[in-house]
Amino acid sequence: MNAMAFGTLRDSHVTLSHGGGGKAMADLIETVFFPAFGPGSGEDQARLTADALCEPGARLALTTDSFVVTPLEFPGGDIGKLAVCGTVNDLAVGGARPLWLSAAFIIEEGCEIALLQRVVASMAREAALAGVRIVTGDTKVVGRGSADGVFVTTSGVGVIPAGRDLVAARIRPGDVVLVNGVLGDHGAAILAARGDLALSTDLVSDCQGLGHLMEAVLAAAPGTRAARDATRGGLAAALNEMALAAGCGIEIREDALPLRPEVRGVCEILGLDPLYLANEGTLVLFVPEAEAEAALCAMRSRPEGQGAAIIGRAVAASEGGAHTARVQMVTSFGGRRIVDRLVGEQLPRIC
Amino acid sequence: MNAMAFGTLRDSHVTLSHGGGGKAMADLIETVFFPAFGPGSGEDQARLTADALCEPGARLALTTDSFVVTPLEFPGGDIGKLAVCGTVNDLAVGGARPLWLSAAFIIEEGCEIALLQRVVASMAREAALAGVRIVTGDTKVVGRGSADGVFVTTSGVGVIPAGRDLVAARIRPGDVVLVNGVLGDHGAAILAARGDLALSTDLVSDCQGLGHLMEAVLAAAPGTRAARDATRGGLAAALNEMALAAGCGIEIREDALPLRPEVRGVCEILGLDPLYLANEGTLVLFVPEAEAEAALCAMRSRPEGQGAAIIGRAVAASEGGAHTARVQMVTSFGGRRIVDRLVGEQLPRIC
Repeated sequence: MNAMAFGTLRDSHVTLSHGGGGKAMADLIETVFFPAFGPGSGEDQARLTADALCEPGARLALTTDSFVVTPLEFPGGDIGKLAVCGTVNDLAVGGARPLWLSAAFIIEEGCEIALLQRVVASMAREAALAGVRIVTGDTKVVGRGSADGVFVTTSGVGVIPAGRDLVAARIRPGDVVLVNGVLGDHGAAILAARGDLALSTDLVSDCQGLGHLMEAVLAAAPGTRAARDATRGGLAAALNEMALAAGCGIEIREDALPLRPEVRGVCEILGLDPLYLANEGTLVLFVPEAEAEAALCAMRSRPEGQGAAIIGRAVAASEGGAHTARVQMVTSFGGRRIVDRLVGEQLPRIC
Repeated sequence: MNAMAFGTLRDSHVTLSHGGGGKAMADLIETVFFPAFGPGSGEDQARLTADALCEPGARLALTTDSFVVTPLEFPGGDIGKLAVCGTVNDLAVGGARPLWLSAAFIIEEGCEIALLQRVVASMAREAALAGVRIVTGDTKVVGRGSADGVFVTTSGVGVIPAGRDLVAARIRPGDVVLVNGVLGDHGAAILAARGDLALSTDLVSDCQGLGHLMEAVLAAAPGTRAARDATRGGLAAALNEMALAAGCGIEIREDALPLRPEVRGVCEILGLDPLYLANEGTLVLFVPEAEAEAALCAMRSRPEGQGAAIIGRAVAASEGGAHTARVQMVTSFGGRRIVDRLVGEQLPRIC
């Protein structure tokens, strides 16, 4: 089916009739989605085969995320790029090779169709970079004031090759903690893009896919224990989740944290803590000490890992303090600080 | 992890902090979602194995849908039941056996937590009935007025056994069209539940899973060509899509359409056409003539198919009129009527 031949959309903005299941919806899909994602099968589902799924010991990985970021377009990305990268990354940090994505759109009446087209083009571009296909989707339209622009929900299917078992429970005291680059760029860039700062900054979201980086790391450091994508709640949330799941403690060094001076500045001015700022392309990796250098080199060999650094290590649960203080930071002054999960909420609709 | 031990949620309504990635979010997940769906793995993805995926010739099916229905609870179901049934049905009509679901929630600040719990319990119940597992999920919270209560996006993964190929392109002139029961109940029930009618009715949505019914039909009528779930846009949308994909015409008989007198009445009073009313548990089936009786009996042998009926047949594209009039209805008076796709929009947020 030639999508463009059906592209009879005359409206510049989405109306409720674009969600009605009739002609207008078909026009919207044929004008906005097919040119970017390719024509659908006309069925209610995608039908897929992959030899990799059938290799003995391989497992299927399934993940989902809704994206509600505001603004919809920001320095370094938009909600579409964020959705594809976020889903690819959720798969990648579990050791899965991402294969297929679905994309569901909840669109507010009045949303500009040109904006939708940019978002969808951005999704297609990012999917191609990550080597995944967006194979099925859905659109719903709600009245003005019942949503905010557009919300995107992506789900991803990947395959975890036999023998890979990246899971926080495998972390052992002594393991080294690495990140692939600077922290907090996404959170700070979104904050700046909202105009909540009187400052103008050059900050750009770190939004990027981590699939290829993970493959490079796993080739160089096959003993890698676990990985996590440090998104909402920042590095602090990722480390606390992992420490809890592993039943161990984690100690990081403030001196070792890669932070842009601009992000540090934004945080100082606004009283924010960069440990809690969201990232959208930041990998947190736990590697046995013997493989730490290899993992670091593998990360630095790729553009997504240029700023990679060793930031700390896993420790025994009882080491260095109270039972509940699972994550601690050795400060630049040599003191110790508890890095707890975020209490309350720092920045809504960051992703 | 014992979910209840973490159920420390003290709020009765959702706040922005429940979406922040910190303690409040963990509390919400542990109080609302884990008790219904079981505890998550603590990882960003579910990791799954199914022998069925590895059978030679088997294919994986992937589908997604966002649900924005209003009201959130209605006679015969709620947004959670709708989401699980809708996704199971999208898989089933393609011949897939549903295996795993993901569920992503976009929640408006101020949403009642007791409501969320009812929706989630309803999802768990429906998943158990359908024999699927909800294996991963996500929650986002947006400010008041940026969403409407709660939106649910479910994605589904299933397996299409080798040899099954239900696809509209296989429909041939002469094939018989069947439905599993009365039409339009969902649309009419939602309309009544909104109070848009001055009438009080006993109408109940037909919202139900169709997976078991599909398996029964395929066992009895293995030559079945194609199936569709007649949701948004009603029977008219489903038939038009299938006729287009098949490159044939479809002729239905008005006399044969199973319609409740109440639905007929609602349509007459409001000037609606029941052919365009949404359904959420209505199967449209194309079967070779030789297997039509077997399919009908198989449907009637199950509760979801008690009201099954033969409603028409596929015809050659040129039969009975203009090239564009793919779907026609022989009226009760013996005339012919074009059944086009819906133009404009009949009832927003029906699913």
